[in-house]
Amino acid sequence: VIRAAVLGASGYTGAEVLRILVGHPAIEVVAVCADRSAGARLSAVFPQFRGRLDLELERVDPAALAARADVAFSCLPHGDSARLVAALVEAGVKVVDLSADFRLRDVAEYAAWYGGGGHEHPAPALLAEAVYGLPERHRAAIRGARLVASAGCFPTAAILALAPLLERGLIGARGIIVDAKSGVSGAGRATSLGSHFSEIGESVRAYKVAGGHRHTPEIEQELGRAAGEGLRLTFTPHLIPMVRGILSCGYATPSDPELPAAAYQAALEEAYRGEPFVDVLGQDALPDTAHVRGSNRAQVAVRLDARAGRVLAISAIDNLVKGAAGQAVQCMNLVLGLSETAGLGGVAMFP
Amino acid sequence: VIRAAVLGASGYTGAEVLRILVGHPAIEVVAVCADRSAGARLSAVFPQFRGRLDLELERVDPAALAARADVAFSCLPHGDSARLVAALVEAGVKVVDLSADFRLRDVAEYAAWYGGGGHEHPAPALLAEAVYGLPERHRAAIRGARLVASAGCFPTAAILALAPLLERGLIGARGIIVDAKSGVSGAGRATSLGSHFSEIGESVRAYKVAGGHRHTPEIEQELGRAAGEGLRLTFTPHLIPMVRGILSCGYATPSDPELPAAAYQAALEEAYRGEPFVDVLGQDALPDTAHVRGSNRAQVAVRLDARAGRVLAISAIDNLVKGAAGQAVQCMNLVLGLSETAGLGGVAMFP
Amino acid sequence: VIRAAVLGASGYTGAEVLRILVGHPAIEVVAVCADRSAGARLSAVFPQFRGRLDLELERVDPAALAARADVAFSCLPHGDSARLVAALVEAGVKVVDLSADFRLRDVAEYAAWYGGGGHEHPAPALLAEAVYGLPERHRAAIRGARLVASAGCFPTAAILALAPLLERGLIGARGIIVDAKSGVSGAGRATSLGSHFSEIGESVRAYKVAGGHRHTPEIEQELGRAAGEGLRLTFTPHLIPMVRGILSCGYATPSDPELPAAAYQAALEEAYRGEPFVDVLGQDALPDTAHVRGSNRAQVAVRLDARAGRVLAISAIDNLVKGAAGQAVQCMNLVLGLSETAGLGGVAMFP
Amino acid sequence: VIRAAVLGASGYTGAEVLRILVGHPAIEVVAVCADRSAGARLSAVFPQFRGRLDLELERVDPAALAARADVAFSCLPHGDSARLVAALVEAGVKVVDLSADFRLRDVAEYAAWYGGGGHEHPAPALLAEAVYGLPERHRAAIRGARLVASAGCFPTAAILALAPLLERGLIGARGIIVDAKSGVSGAGRATSLGSHFSEIGESVRAYKVAGGHRHTPEIEQELGRAAGEGLRLTFTPHLIPMVRGILSCGYATPSDPELPAAAYQAALEEAYRGEPFVDVLGQDALPDTAHVRGSNRAQVAVRLDARAGRVLAISAIDNLVKGAAGQAVQCMNLVLGLSETAGLGGVAMFP
Repeated sequence: VIRAAVLGASGYTGAEVLRILVGHPAIEVVAVCADRSAGARLSAVFPQFRGRLDLELERVDPAALAARADVAFSCLPHGDSARLVAALVEAGVKVVDLSADFRLRDVAEYAAWYGGGGHEHPAPALLAEAVYGLPERHRAAIRGARLVASAGCFPTAAILALAPLLERGLIGARGIIVDAKSGVSGAGRATSLGSHFSEIGESVRAYKVAGGHRHTPEIEQELGRAAGEGLRLTFTPHLIPMVRGILSCGYATPSDPELPAAAYQAALEEAYRGEPFVDVLGQDALPDTAHVRGSNRAQVAVRLDARAGRVLAISAIDNLVKGAAGQAVQCMNLVLGLSETAGLGGVAMFP
Repeated sequence: VIRAAVLGASGYTGAEVLRILVGHPAIEVVAVCADRSAGARLSAVFPQFRGRLDLELERVDPAALAARADVAFSCLPHGDSARLVAALVEAGVKVVDLSADFRLRDVAEYAAWYGGGGHEHPAPALLAEAVYGLPERHRAAIRGARLVASAGCFPTAAILALAPLLERGLIGARGIIVDAKSGVSGAGRATSLGSHFSEIGESVRAYKVAGGHRHTPEIEQELGRAAGEGLRLTFTPHLIPMVRGILSCGYATPSDPELPAAAYQAALEEAYRGEPFVDVLGQDALPDTAHVRGSNRAQVAVRLDARAGRVLAISAIDNLVKGAAGQAVQCMNLVLGLSETAGLGGVAMFP
Repeated sequence: VIRAAVLGASGYTGAEVLRILVGHPAIEVVAVCADRSAGARLSAVFPQFRGRLDLELERVDPAALAARADVAFSCLPHGDSARLVAALVEAGVKVVDLSADFRLRDVAEYAAWYGGGGHEHPAPALLAEAVYGLPERHRAAIRGARLVASAGCFPTAAILALAPLLERGLIGARGIIVDAKSGVSGAGRATSLGSHFSEIGESVRAYKVAGGHRHTPEIEQELGRAAGEGLRLTFTPHLIPMVRGILSCGYATPSDPELPAAAYQAALEEAYRGEPFVDVLGQDALPDTAHVRGSNRAQVAVRLDARAGRVLAISAIDNLVKGAAGQAVQCMNLVLGLSETAGLGGVAMFP
Repeated sequence: VIRAAVLGASGYTGAEVLRILVGHPAIEVVAVCADRSAGARLSAVFPQFRGRLDLELERVDPAALAARADVAFSCLPHGDSARLVAALVEAGVKVVDLSADFRLRDVAEYAAWYGGGGHEHPAPALLAEAVYGLPERHRAAIRGARLVASAGCFPTAAILALAPLLERGLIGARGIIVDAKSGVSGAGRATSLGSHFSEIGESVRAYKVAGGHRHTPEIEQELGRAAGEGLRLTFTPHLIPMVRGILSCGYATPSDPELPAAAYQAALEEAYRGEPFVDVLGQDALPDTAHVRGSNRAQVAVRLDARAGRVLAISAIDNLVKGAAGQAVQCMNLVLGLSETAGLGGVAMFP
């Protein structure tokens, strides 16, 4: 059996990694770490684990963990994560990092978006080695990696729908817009007025618009790879009154205005043929977060707006599963040479 | 006192017109019509009116109504509405029509979007006379009208944010995208799987995308007027799990890439100076449906995404008030020469 | 015009008092106080007031307020409230206190439930003078009061349904159970994990059960007055995933097992005949919070469970209106000799 | 491998049985039946099964099914279910019936609650043989059964919390009250105004009160068995604005007023020691539907209200899992001699 540790186990993504690992046939969870709650039982923080995973939360000690765990998931905040991840990797632990610390290839980009006061990347050498953790795009590289930077939630949704179209030259790299809608769990467990029930129980609003959200460069990086050229896009996240789920709508310009809708449809179907976690919908259905909730699946669909000359690439994921914990486990499966779908076979919980 | 009748009083927009009229200082509601529920008391259909408006629902009889009412609101489905509205107008009743029947200036457009099997407009002559009921854009014309076609919910949100920018030439008329999110009350009171609580309690999805929604030509018509040229745009409506509210995000291309954000901000502020129902937010705040719920106000904001070369024009309204019943009463006030804000002074209900 | 001040204007009940006062024909709001937000504009804290009530939040200064205001609403936390209220009353300002400080007649009860570490009531003399602010029970006393202790949200719901039955001897005073369900706005605007959207978006739970909730003695006091004897009851509050509304279900034992359902129905109808804000439903309908939302109305209903020998007294209110701000304004109207319904005529916002 | 058929696969409980069976290690789903949708693919009705269970929905044909399936789950409406279940059992198929048809031991009770116009039970002989499907109460009998009547959702919640206290004589059998709150999925997938999103998005209401709900005799039957005497109780179901979950609060009278809270706590702990699906909470925590969502677990807790002389027995379940599909699979596991927890190991999905 493979021994796993989860760092940042008192947050929502940590809990979701644990929920999946408890059902994983090849994994035993040996350590759950959360500095601020150290000493408490996991089930005191998350009652759903009572009698199922009765570990005590502990402080993160990379050296000690290295002796006890084969693989670690970091659900820590960026910055904190990089330092501990670096220590774990050096000590020989395979790591899947769910923070943003190792996602951007370019240290200058990292400093620009995540720095502050001349802040530099805590482990630039390791950054060069880390693999971007979106298996549908980088499966081979993930297989051999020591460190995987599991893709962000909004990027996963946006990239899965748009990248195949860019890669095949069906849409232009300029002027892409991603308008995304997220459930509130994406904001985490730390309380704030912005996540206060009474404020958002009947509210929808955009936030960090016009280049203000840190997932922007991550989407640009991966879509740029697909396009074969650098690109800049407009990304608009919205908060909507539900707990889980992201719906992303990407808008792009057709490269060839004469191309029929079927060409875009065929591109997605070709790109995802045989993919266990991407469900390409036909022209008769549209993605719905309710149909992927709790599962590691993404629904993707493409539509041609021939009247107005636009292509729409729409996708739905569960932000905590395919957008975080499920994807991280999928990456771990690849890293460890397990079946890619191990522990991830659950059908979405609908209704 | 002015006597008002409401046609289609058993639906949500009808009920909302009545809620507002009950608090209107110059209006007495004399008739509530709903063919299918005729004979029942209004309070049996909508319990909130018990003891406040204990009228009996009746069948629509235009000739009889003309003798009893000075003004009528039609909340009937399109097609049905036009026929009855025409009879009422001919009989001398001022009418505010909340259906789509008199919104599109072009009968061919009407036939293309609302027809079916060679269906033609039921009252083309009256169509030429009807005024589009968005007071912030057509106040003077509404004042003298016999028939006002109260603007649709999505169009109201989209037009208020984008029209001033087009009118001033700040953004291009080509390639506009409107991505809008609506609460479920916009789908009305008729039951369907698409409005079934368990299906959408934790769901977000797009629908009628890529030129499939009938509000598309309405938005195009009014933005085309503002631009001074015909235009086609992409409109994507989404359904989100809340009852009331629309958030609309319009994406456009700056006419002059060098223009600073302040120029767009100034345009909105100039356009809406003194408007009682449009709240132009500054660069430090973004629209939120929770802050306009139950009120006739629209929040609008504009942002420049200088990195990607886009302008975002964002707005929030209550779809049943500024997007329907409140706007209709605002139009009625103008038609009747009353204070434009009469009956519409309520502050939004937050939380 | 009568000049009003609102203390604690940065919380939900403060905002709701202001929403109502803005539409009140006889009142001008002259001061909005909130120590922690002093200096900010009200509209920065609650955007719905932009352009409608552009006052600056100020620190509470009773002496200065006495010169500017005729009446004051205190929405401050208990303890804090009593001290400032006492100063205002002494300075000649009429006060409606929405905190719990002056609701319990018995200082020992106050100390037992609200004290802590030998904490005593800050103004026991004034406590003897204060009137319990539930107009349907104490209208005459409220009319002449200098200080009204506006009734709590759960107590209002429970008392309105049960008191008439106790008063008429139809149900026994022993063994009453009140099982109540509240929207989250009742917990206020201070953030906590218990009001965090993701924790309660799909959650229902009881809290402070078995004699743990401070509204217990308040319900007992008023039902005891109605019964003519002291009583103890079981009160169980629940938190449910909606913003506004309380549904209360009271269970009691019939005094006479042979009495038919009609007798209980008649008692409620007699008790509330002519009451503007209590809607007694018939045997064919049950209370629903959606039908009173945003309004000052209570729906009450009674049912006899003849099989099991129980009487159910059910009620629905909006916790922020009839359960707080609306009731406070209703009390103020009585205190000032205004029409009891002034400013409170709004029909519930449904849907 | 064991071959399973699901009757009534187009409804929510049918879908939930399938979700669980897809992850069950010993079961292969060989038939999905739904008369009205026959011919359609399951994934057209429930998109979450695309690529996971691509069967075609078929009409129910008991004789043909008997040749193909070893076990069948009936999620059909009562009445319909009994007839088909009887045919299947006679043909040698083991059946778990999720309808109410075989839950009440007394045919007169069945006729009184489920009949109509002299309607009698369709298979009274089989009724005598059927076992009530609540494993924590009837495990041994379920093991040998041909037909299990899986317990209802409200009864499961109420019985698990109250039965151990009755059985041990800690509470009286007279005067019990069960006040329960359910998510909307319990009302099924058939559309109605009562399940229309806009009607209940911010609503809570009681329904079928005072002896009007058909789960009343089922709760009475099982609590009567536990008490060793017949009993009648008051059951009040409520509908609250969430999709899944039931919270039940049972009120009872202590048999011995001097008994401390610890005695009730000890009773629950003793009753459920070793039970895989019942989590007895301590005096420091209360049940929450969010903590059992998607899992087959029940949380139960007991509190003594010493002030008022009441015992509260509180429980939380997922109405579609422990209240329906999960419990049915648990029963099937027992019937087939499989591990009772097979396929049911998932941790609750929180948040």
